Amino acid sequence: MVLEITSLSNRHVKSIKLLHRRKYREKNGEFIIEGLRIVEHALDNNVHIGAVYYSDEILATSRGHTLLNRISYNNINLYKVNERVFREISTTDNPQGILGVVKRKYYNIDDIIDKEKLFLIVLDRLQDPGNVGTIIRTADSAGVDGIIVLKGTVDIYNSKTIRSTMGSIFTTPIIHVDDPTNMVSILKSHNIDIVATDLNAKNYYFQMDYSNKNAIIIGNEAEGICQELIEHSNIKVKIPIVGNAESLNASIASGIIMYELVRQNYISEN
Amino acid sequence: MVLEITSLSNRHVKSIKLLHRRKYREKNGEFIIEGLRIVEHALDNNVHIGAVYYSDEILATSRGHTLLNRISYNNINLYKVNERVFREISTTDNPQGILGVVKRKYYNIDDIIDKEKLFLIVLDRLQDPGNVGTIIRTADSAGVDGIIVLKGTVDIYNSKTIRSTMGSIFTTPIIHVDDPTNMVSILKSHNIDIVATDLNAKNYYFQMDYSNKNAIIIGNEAEGICQELIEHSNIKVKIPIVGNAESLNASIASGIIMYELVRQNYISEN
Repeated sequence: MVLEITSLSNRHVKSIKLLHRRKYREKNGEFIIEGLRIVEHALDNNVHIGAVYYSDEILATSRGHTLLNRISYNNINLYKVNERVFREISTTDNPQGILGVVKRKYYNIDDIIDKEKLFLIVLDRLQDPGNVGTIIRTADSAGVDGIIVLKGTVDIYNSKTIRSTMGSIFTTPIIHVDDPTNMVSILKSHNIDIVATDLNAKNYYFQMDYSNKNAIIIGNEAEGICQELIEHSNIKVKIPIVGNAESLNASIASGIIMYELVRQNYISEN
Repeated sequence: MVLEITSLSNRHVKSIKLLHRRKYREKNGEFIIEGLRIVEHALDNNVHIGAVYYSDEILATSRGHTLLNRISYNNINLYKVNERVFREISTTDNPQGILGVVKRKYYNIDDIIDKEKLFLIVLDRLQDPGNVGTIIRTADSAGVDGIIVLKGTVDIYNSKTIRSTMGSIFTTPIIHVDDPTNMVSILKSHNIDIVATDLNAKNYYFQMDYSNKNAIIIGNEAEGICQELIEHSNIKVKIPIVGNAESLNASIASGIIMYELVRQNYISEN
């Protein structure tokens, strides 16, 4: 039986609204996924979904119907809400009428550090939610083993980032690290190359060899990578700017470097 | 002397508001640039700015002051408006208090087609304004000679696209083409390789040689490149997906391919 929520003061409504804020996402270890595709992705990846809320709007398409059937079949708590309630709990301007509450997975650097071929991404204080989501999606595509999120980075569990990951939030291990110095010593003790983009670098990114284990640092959109991390990087590279632009978007720059690793890896194996 | 506008029914206010719509941007051959950095970029690139409108907010920083002085010095029509009027003419939710009206430049494919080393980007019905802006910025950075915008693509003169270009809208020739068949015959008659990403391609993008003149087609976010253009492409490539992601964001995919051309070009010249 599907329970129906019609009141804005319902306790579920209140608890979902708290998850609009980073503080409560962290406190509860939960986050919101919203929209047809991301809920499909969550089911595809056997993500632990605590509850799903929908409005009539999702029933307008057969894909929406199918999705609701899958949710029921998986014994996930399902609540029907009216349009007014949905607008209240929604994280977007144009809600599709489906939203889930998901348990966050916690990974530790030790969970992945001993892999034989290691390819890590480190996010150093990135601020744009869309950039971060796109980087997670690209990293997943490039076969990255994990993403280290340093303190000062935008919350990866905010709705815009989650949407931009296109499901890769569920398939890529994400590790939160508060102390960059500690991270550096762990990476070094495991003989992992630390790769930084640096305008003052001598070499272009395609002139370096990435056959060792690697951690690529992506810097803040305006300030780049912090000085401490640049100093501890043993591979410093720059991306050529051939034309008139001042710089590249952070997600584009990281995509270019990640795929240079993919390219070199493919060439060396074939 | 700076003229002051305080009424929402002022004729300037009305004409700027028309430019919020694609129809009038095309009819008038004008578009809006908004924000400190993009107006600075326009001045840096000697763009024809018809008029600039500002509110007190821009005077909060010395950079804003300097910018207004530059505008006055360049004899650009300058209007002070109150906060209410600025909110009315603004294209953003968080206005910085400065907005310019700019004349659009028209380029023709013949203006650039005879270059000896030609590197073109073709946008085939892209829909996301941020993607398109980021692609223009990346193309500018990669030294692209021109961007062909096919019919059905989002208006590149909408405010979100312009912001995402970070000034590259002023430095990259943009050519609008309504008929893809006509474009293909022009490209072929000039011996330009047409490069398409295609999931069914046999080769990865880094296995092909791009030393000839090139036009790289970037396809619609959901549907990819239209069948006709894929059929007329003589270089078909795919980007490897190593991990679990279904696909790459269109701007990331195009950045990866554009920079493979940059890389090959650099290697062949050094």
